[in-house]
Formats: sequence, structure tokens, C-alpha cells
Amino acid sequence: MREVAVLGVAMNRFGVSQKTNLEMFTEVGLEAIERSGLEPKDIQALFLGCCLGAFEEGQAHIAPFAHSELGLPTGSPAVLMECACATATVSIRNAALLVAGGVYDFVLAGGTERATLMGTPLATRTFAMASHSYYESTVGITFPGVFALAAHMYAAKYGIGLPELKRHMAEVAVKNHKHALLNPKAHFQKEIDVETVLNSMMVADPLQLYDCCPFSDGAAAVVLARADRAKEFVKKPIYIIGMGQAACGALSLQRDLTVVKARVEAARQAYSQAGIGPEDLDVVELHDCFTIAEILAIEALGLYEFGKGYEAATKGETALGGKVPVNPSGGLKAKGHPIGATGAAQVVEIVEQLREEAGERQIPGAKIGLVDTLGGDFGTVCNIILRR
Amino acid sequence: MREVAVLGVAMNRFGVSQKTNLEMFTEVGLEAIERSGLEPKDIQALFLGCCLGAFEEGQAHIAPFAHSELGLPTGSPAVLMECACATATVSIRNAALLVAGGVYDFVLAGGTERATLMGTPLATRTFAMASHSYYESTVGITFPGVFALAAHMYAAKYGIGLPELKRHMAEVAVKNHKHALLNPKAHFQKEIDVETVLNSMMVADPLQLYDCCPFSDGAAAVVLARADRAKEFVKKPIYIIGMGQAACGALSLQRDLTVVKARVEAARQAYSQAGIGPEDLDVVELHDCFTIAEILAIEALGLYEFGKGYEAATKGETALGGKVPVNPSGGLKAKGHPIGATGAAQVVEIVEQLREEAGERQIPGAKIGLVDTLGGDFGTVCNIILRR
Repeated sequence: MREVAVLGVAMNRFGVSQKTNLEMFTEVGLEAIERSGLEPKDIQALFLGCCLGAFEEGQAHIAPFAHSELGLPTGSPAVLMECACATATVSIRNAALLVAGGVYDFVLAGGTERATLMGTPLATRTFAMASHSYYESTVGITFPGVFALAAHMYAAKYGIGLPELKRHMAEVAVKNHKHALLNPKAHFQKEIDVETVLNSMMVADPLQLYDCCPFSDGAAAVVLARADRAKEFVKKPIYIIGMGQAACGALSLQRDLTVVKARVEAARQAYSQAGIGPEDLDVVELHDCFTIAEILAIEALGLYEFGKGYEAATKGETALGGKVPVNPSGGLKAKGHPIGATGAAQVVEIVEQLREEAGERQIPGAKIGLVDTLGGDFGTVCNIILRR
Repeated sequence: MREVAVLGVAMNRFGVSQKTNLEMFTEVGLEAIERSGLEPKDIQALFLGCCLGAFEEGQAHIAPFAHSELGLPTGSPAVLMECACATATVSIRNAALLVAGGVYDFVLAGGTERATLMGTPLATRTFAMASHSYYESTVGITFPGVFALAAHMYAAKYGIGLPELKRHMAEVAVKNHKHALLNPKAHFQKEIDVETVLNSMMVADPLQLYDCCPFSDGAAAVVLARADRAKEFVKKPIYIIGMGQAACGALSLQRDLTVVKARVEAARQAYSQAGIGPEDLDVVELHDCFTIAEILAIEALGLYEFGKGYEAATKGETALGGKVPVNPSGGLKAKGHPIGATGAAQVVEIVEQLREEAGERQIPGAKIGLVDTLGGDFGTVCNIILRR
């Protein structure tokens, strides 16, 4: 298997956009290709993620239209992948595997989503279709509900009072909003404090409004290449050194909602392939769709022992300047969450950090970073480890 | 790149089903795995196609749930792909590329669809989202409309009177219905004649009801493996010797609706990789979503010169016993068209023909066969060539 490098990356400002998915992805795709020192004719395949296109814009089968707008050659196939919130990460991983396997030398992968058109309540209900339609969504489960259950279980399992846990959860939101202040591409650029979170509207007890990420519009793209040719095109290629992806079925199979089984397995694959452990990571972008989700993720990724992660944000250990900065971009919580684009934006952030091009939020000397994306209510997890 | 073999294949009877996508795909997936001499624990990745799951069943993100029902290991990822009607073929092609590239040794690929729940008029409108949402579907284009335009253009371009062309088109339907009589898995098992077609309800002039394939429910699955180990598991592995996939954007870019640009390119790739030409094919399963579509396909695949394919069915050349049997399964027209499963069922038919296990519709001594699947209004074409 060949080594795979990331050449150019690009994303737009996440938030509320009047642009279509095709417009957004074409813009970031062309920017990523240009930053790679390539032209559209050089791209041998497109792997695009988009989850809600049919619902938000009446556009299914978007991949060949994006392909055409980008000016890619007819002989270069366009494939749409969908794995709920992990969509773009899965697209990038499969694209990277095809480069590693020698099928392609240069590919474009990423995602796009308009998630604000229908409004948050309807989008929440619509997106609940990514949970199990027989056991879960039809009986009223939505994603805020699942993570609310996980927060209750976390508090009970580790004997932490719920008010105490909620304050620590709020610190996750405070940290990620603070990070986003340094990220001009972030959806939210608004400093908040613990009281902002605790005084906000209740969404799904114990999750309040500021425990929840927003739906956002946005797009992000990365160009992947065979590593042995990367330096012909860019000065600072970033290398993919480990990847993992795992699946789990309905929520009932999780047994313990505080430990996402697919993440434990996906992370094991990625660390094993990279030949490193969590202690080697300088920066992490992970799936903080809710504040409790960041706590669950830092534990399953091995940054903290199970039951020990909840104080990390409060202690400042996961903030910029802390032991292992988590979500320097602002995360899903404050950078925003355009579903099918989220994983690609996580890769963009890690690549910019490892290139020391992250501006005010740069982690000095960051050499190795990890991307973690969760799809659905724990059905899919995909991890990618990158190094400079 | 390694050679890739097909081990076990399976499909259910296409038609109107009360089963869910998960039930249908689990049944055919387990059957394909068993026929491969494997167990679910041996499957290293699942590639599943499904287009309308969110609309028909409120089930997006179906791949990890299918993965779980099949009993695949957590570490084996589940990926959903979507390329309109070419969905399953694209899933199989990408799965095969990952086996060829050495990423996986044994994978399950295929598709499932419930396309009858909402009824044909609403399904037609819903599925029109696979055309371009800005230039096409929003101005009223549906797939019957696109192929009706193509039929008019074909008649005009080659100076054939429309009544004459319609009789030849009707012969395609007659042939494929006749083939389906020999296929116990076919949606329709009903002999028709040219008058049946010409007296049927007008759908989109000149396409009448019997010029159009039905929406069907169904699922199909194939197990792919590294070819060097195939004979450890099955007596008659079938080998993938060529594949192609190409993309084209909005319909306006086609210039000539009688020549599907993506098909010309995808077929070129597949023939080139296989080192054969159309004259070497013993059997073809191609995308006859409408009768005119079969005529366009046999021409772009090189079985007939452009403008010469319209008489093929009338002359009996594409029937069982003819020069090159096309759609011995009954095709989309009579076997049925469960969108996301269609391409996998085409592969199932070719594999059974090449194994001489096609029962009453067996083409004696068939050695090489081609699968052709079109996605959307010409946006995606995927071809796979197999040999015994």
C-alpha cells in the first residue's frame, strides 16, 4: 500500500448561506485544487458527501453535477457517499484507500450541506432518520435525546451529581466558543460563559441550547495524492498515517451509551496503523455535536481514562495552550455543523495546524493530529490520523 | 493491482414486497455470504446502495444497521453509496477497486430499495430529484420526459418515422417480457405483444406504459474476493476483467441525447481494461429503464453502430438465441427496477449466466458478460465486464 498525502484543502465560512450545495462545493473544490498546484483535469475521481440534499434542495445524485461544475474530465467518476455526520470523513477515508491501493494518484474528496433552510426543529426531526427507523426514530428518538440519555448514564455510572456534570459540560461549550473566536470560518464568533449555557433554553434534559451544536451550511474539500509525488506540487504536504472506520447497529446494541463501541474500534485501527498512541497527538478535532459528546470522545480516543474526561475542559487541559488542544477550530459546537461537510472541515483544520497556517489559533509545533467523526446515534465512527 | 473474483451472489424476487430494506438486504446478503463458503465474520467491509430509503421508510444511514443485521464484525466498516439508478453498480465497482488495491480480501456489496410504497406517480416525482435541481427537475423534467425527448431526437436524427420507431421500441419490451417469463425472480411474468405496448396508456409521448420499466422492491448482493483465493471457497468463481465509470453534468451538456457521453467513456475504460471489444461479449445486462434506453445503450456500448440499433430487437438479434442476448433476466423493463438494487441484480444475472446456472434462460457456453447501469438523466454510467 502506498502512502497518501493531503495537498490543498479549503472550506468556506460555515453559517447561514444563500448558496446552493453545488455553488458551495464548487467554490471550495476549485480552491483546494488550486492550492494543490493542480488543475481540474488532473483530478481522477471525486468523492462527495451530502446527506440532506434531497430534503433541503430537492437535489439527489449531486456528485456528477458537482463534477461538472468543477470541470473535471468525463472519465473521472463522481461518487456520493452517505454515513450521516461521518459522511465526509468516510468519503475522504475511502478516497485515501483508493490512492493507497494504487487505483488513483490524485482525487478530490469532501462534503457539502445546506442544513439551515428548513429550520432547526424540522431539521432535527428529518435528520433523526439517520437513527434506526424501526427501533428508534419512529418511537421519538432524536439526536439531542440520545446524547441526553448518554449524559444521564455518564452521571449515574461515575457517581457524579448531574448539576456538577452539567457545569463541566458547559465548560466544553465555553472552550469551543472561545476557540471559534480565533477562527474566521466559524459559524459562531461569540464568547460565552458557564452561566450562558446553564441559563439557556432546555432542549433535552440535561442538554440546554448551548450544549448543542447548530445546524450550519458549509462545504469543505481536500485533495489527496500519492505521497511520493506530493512535493512536486506543494511545499508542505501532510501525510495520512492511520485510518479507522467501524460500524455498530441499533442503539440497543451499544449496551453502554457512555462508550461508543464503533469509536473504540475505529481508533484502535487508526492508532495501530499509525504506530502511535493517544499520547502522541498534538491536536484533535473531534465530534462535539453536544458537550457530553466531546467528553465521551476524549475518553474513547484514549486521551483520558473512562470516567475521567469530564473535568478536562474545566481544567483547561483541552483548550488551546493545554495538554492536548481539542477542537481548536471551535468544533461542531461553535465552528458549526453542516452535516455532510463536517468531517472534511475537521481534516482542513488539522492540516492547517500541522502546516502552522492556523493563524491565531495555531498550536506551536503541532506534528500529529487526529480527526474523529461520529455518524448517527453511534452507528458509524471514522478516524484519520495525520502528520506533517 | 490484484485480480478480483465474484464468489456468491443472491437476489430476491423483485416486485411488491412488504419487507423493509433491512429485511430484504439481510436475506440476500446472508445468502450471498453462505454461497461464498464464508461466514459473516469473514466480511471485511460492506458497501451498500440505497437511494430512496429516507423517503420510503424514513431510514437514512442504513448501512450500519444492515451491517448489524448481517452480523458483520464491528471493525468492518459499512458505507452507503448513492449514484441514482447506478448506485449498486458504483458500490460494487468501488468495492472491487478496494479489493484490487489490496485494502480488503473479502467484501459484500450490493443494494436494496423499496420503490413501490409511495406509488408510481409520487415516486416518479420524488426520483426526479436525481436530475439537476436547478436546470431540470424544478422546471418539470422527469425521467420519462427525458427519455421521451431522446426518442424524438433519435427518430429525427436518423430520419425514422416515429410510428416506425415506436414499433421497434415496442419489440424491446416484447423481448424483455419474454425473457422474464423464464426468470422466476422477475417482477413481471406476463407475455405481451407489440399491440399491448402500442395500445397502452400514454406516459410521455412517445413513451407508453409498456415502454417504461416499473418501480420495484428488491435487493441483491455479491461477495467479492481476491481472485487468488477464490477457488478455496467456490468451484466457479467469476472474474471481473474490466470496469469503467464516468460522470457528466446537467442534460444541457450532453448536446446529443441519443449518445450518452458518460456511457461512451465508461465503456471505453471497461473494454480497454478487459482487453476485449463488444464483439467478444456473450451476454449483456443493460439499463433498459425505457425501451428507447436499450436502443441507446446497445449503440453506445458498441454492439451496434449509432443509428443502427433500433431494429435489433425486431430482428431477434438481442433475444435469447440471437447474436448477443441483451437482458436475458428480463431487464429493468420486466425483471423490475428497485433503484438502488438494480446494478447488483444485473451482476447476479451475468454471474449466473457465466456459471451456467441461469436455468431456462441460460445462454449456452457464455464466457464473457457486461453490466451497464445508467444513473440519473445521463449523469453517471458504470460498466463491469465479467468472465468465467
